[in-house]
Amino acid sequence: MVTTTTSRPFPGASGTSSAGATPAHVPPTAQQAAARSGLAGVLAAETRLSQVQGDIGRLSIGGYAVEDLAPAASFTAVAFLLLYDRLPDAAEEQRFAAEIAQHRTLDPSTLALLAQAARANAAPIDALRLGVASLSVFGAPSRERLLGALPSLVAAFARLCAGRQPVAPDPSLGAAASFLYQLRGERAEARAERALETYWNTVVDHGLNASTFTARVIASTGSDLGSSIEGALGALKGPLHGGAPGPALTALLALRREGGDLAARTRSWVEAEVAAGRRIMGFGHRVYRVRDPRADVLRAAAASLLTGSDLLASAEEHEAAVLETLRRLKPEREIATNVEFYTALLLHGLELEPALFTPVFALGRVAGWIAHVAEQSAHGRLIRPDALYVGATGRALRAAAQ
Amino acid sequence: MVTTTTSRPFPGASGTSSAGATPAHVPPTAQQAAARSGLAGVLAAETRLSQVQGDIGRLSIGGYAVEDLAPAASFTAVAFLLLYDRLPDAAEEQRFAAEIAQHRTLDPSTLALLAQAARANAAPIDALRLGVASLSVFGAPSRERLLGALPSLVAAFARLCAGRQPVAPDPSLGAAASFLYQLRGERAEARAERALETYWNTVVDHGLNASTFTARVIASTGSDLGSSIEGALGALKGPLHGGAPGPALTALLALRREGGDLAARTRSWVEAEVAAGRRIMGFGHRVYRVRDPRADVLRAAAASLLTGSDLLASAEEHEAAVLETLRRLKPEREIATNVEFYTALLLHGLELEPALFTPVFALGRVAGWIAHVAEQSAHGRLIRPDALYVGATGRALRAAAQ
Repeated sequence: MVTTTTSRPFPGASGTSSAGATPAHVPPTAQQAAARSGLAGVLAAETRLSQVQGDIGRLSIGGYAVEDLAPAASFTAVAFLLLYDRLPDAAEEQRFAAEIAQHRTLDPSTLALLAQAARANAAPIDALRLGVASLSVFGAPSRERLLGALPSLVAAFARLCAGRQPVAPDPSLGAAASFLYQLRGERAEARAERALETYWNTVVDHGLNASTFTARVIASTGSDLGSSIEGALGALKGPLHGGAPGPALTALLALRREGGDLAARTRSWVEAEVAAGRRIMGFGHRVYRVRDPRADVLRAAAASLLTGSDLLASAEEHEAAVLETLRRLKPEREIATNVEFYTALLLHGLELEPALFTPVFALGRVAGWIAHVAEQSAHGRLIRPDALYVGATGRALRAAAQ
Repeated sequence: MVTTTTSRPFPGASGTSSAGATPAHVPPTAQQAAARSGLAGVLAAETRLSQVQGDIGRLSIGGYAVEDLAPAASFTAVAFLLLYDRLPDAAEEQRFAAEIAQHRTLDPSTLALLAQAARANAAPIDALRLGVASLSVFGAPSRERLLGALPSLVAAFARLCAGRQPVAPDPSLGAAASFLYQLRGERAEARAERALETYWNTVVDHGLNASTFTARVIASTGSDLGSSIEGALGALKGPLHGGAPGPALTALLALRREGGDLAARTRSWVEAEVAAGRRIMGFGHRVYRVRDPRADVLRAAAASLLTGSDLLASAEEHEAAVLETLRRLKPEREIATNVEFYTALLLHGLELEPALFTPVFALGRVAGWIAHVAEQSAHGRLIRPDALYVGATGRALRAAAQ
């Protein structure tokens, strides 16, 4: 036991303490402002994977405009594009798809682990992390293993939570078709499979978002791919990460259930939320000042799924009322519908539980993470920033009396 | 299936590709240089946890010089210091230790998982990641849970790998005593327990190293503590992370086994390694230009363990011969023994297998990770840097003929 040289309980001992010594009304120094900026605007990597141009509302994936690529290509082709910087020809795509399909089968001990997690009521994203850690125990997982096994982990866990047995993969199926089959135990409609591929293509990569950056920092130490993906999943879990579409749908469904004039109810709700200082989920984006280029792609995909349902009409009525109200209340701000709103509609249209939204997002983004890890590994420099020290200095110990 | 508009197989399609277009002899632009710098010198956080002054060879932990604090305080007291910015009094330390001790017990399903990992010959660091993921399935683990359970995971896995049963924790024991007891099945000598506490105190925190930064990036999304620690473990695994002391010892032990004049053998070996362009592990450091202030602390702790063994004399002879040879071959460089050399001696003196060195390092560093997560969470800003886009632009799709 050691004690400090003085009896002051906070913040400590002899020497000077600068932590918390600056009153709140003193503006931060330039160094403090930099340290607190979350690295906004700081270049931390070179990438050829995606180009985010928030000021003009453009996003390209591997050099292709997202609105051209996402609805046209298979998810497997887009994963190939990110890894090899070109789209595959038909034979290459088939070969890559077959390699991934080979790796979909989970071994019995991983399935037993998921069953345990289901009994413990684990969140699906935590079960997915556990599943990835479990893959690593049997040898560092390859790209194809991760692309193949992650959808199986999510589908198997969802079934186990519902008290059903996991479904063995069918290697003849493509990425989305296989996932929906393993989830439902029967083939989905072609439009559902296409909508999910479009969704995954749309969210496959988006610059150095926090989960992608996490994957790159871990990769920069020379660690293995499984560790990078596990870390990225941990970051994706965070509510500030973005891309978690659940809340955008919750409000719409609740307002619809109340019945009556949806537009009027939406306007009142937005006014109350804004008055309470809360954000309206599904509207506005940190990066895109004009419009989120992914929104139109996802709107079209969601519409293709919801044809014949009155949810689509409700969503459009709700969206128009939110935008009108926000623009009236905050005329100085550019506000547009973001990717979360249509994602929520799309995933709801696929009959997915909201608890699966973040894991299913991960199933698309993982192809971007894998490609970023490859870029970072090729580059090879450790990512190791500095911290600004703001703590006590010169504290001295004395031996305790006892 | 989509194909690109041209038949060029690499790197792709219509539009311009700037990736790889710059020949190697063209110096990078300022933006490229920044993006490739690994964020060296960039401030990414404020911290009061440790102050690294590489230029003058000083390291302080919570305001105390590492050489004063590490050999005097318990690891529990240092973990408290990092969390609360002051050393605990005796009652507080006892209370904190008791809370941690309560959380040492692993549930049967986690133990079953470790047994499975042992049968699959998993690396101990991967088993530790899996163990942390497993803790999260039963609810987000608290600080005390992580501080209590991590040593149990490492000890239980090591025993299972050796075909022995895990040992239940004894809540009356302190951090190092408990870990060594759970590892060996019997109490260690007091000097071994003290040496391990000193080691953990010495490596508990060291600025924004890559694993700590990983933990902060994950925490910045609002994710949970378990996710941050799991990500940090993934980064710690990487060979470029540093602090992995195995290789520093390997050379010494091999040269000793050869017999004869150790100093002469060491000199020849260093000359051959340097001629081959290889680094001598255990000597030199990226940050400390003068001396690594942790080296003396660890040297003393290792010496206290190895008293009576001729390994200590061999190590001193080897160290002197390495330094003399390196200084002769590279007179322009400041070269000193680093923390890895004495860490390796110390952990060897504790009869730990080299495969356990990185996990045992993690058992100390985890207290730093936990405190950094607390700092980051209090600050609350998402860490999200930018990437420099260097890929193709303006690629266009055409529908495939089929």
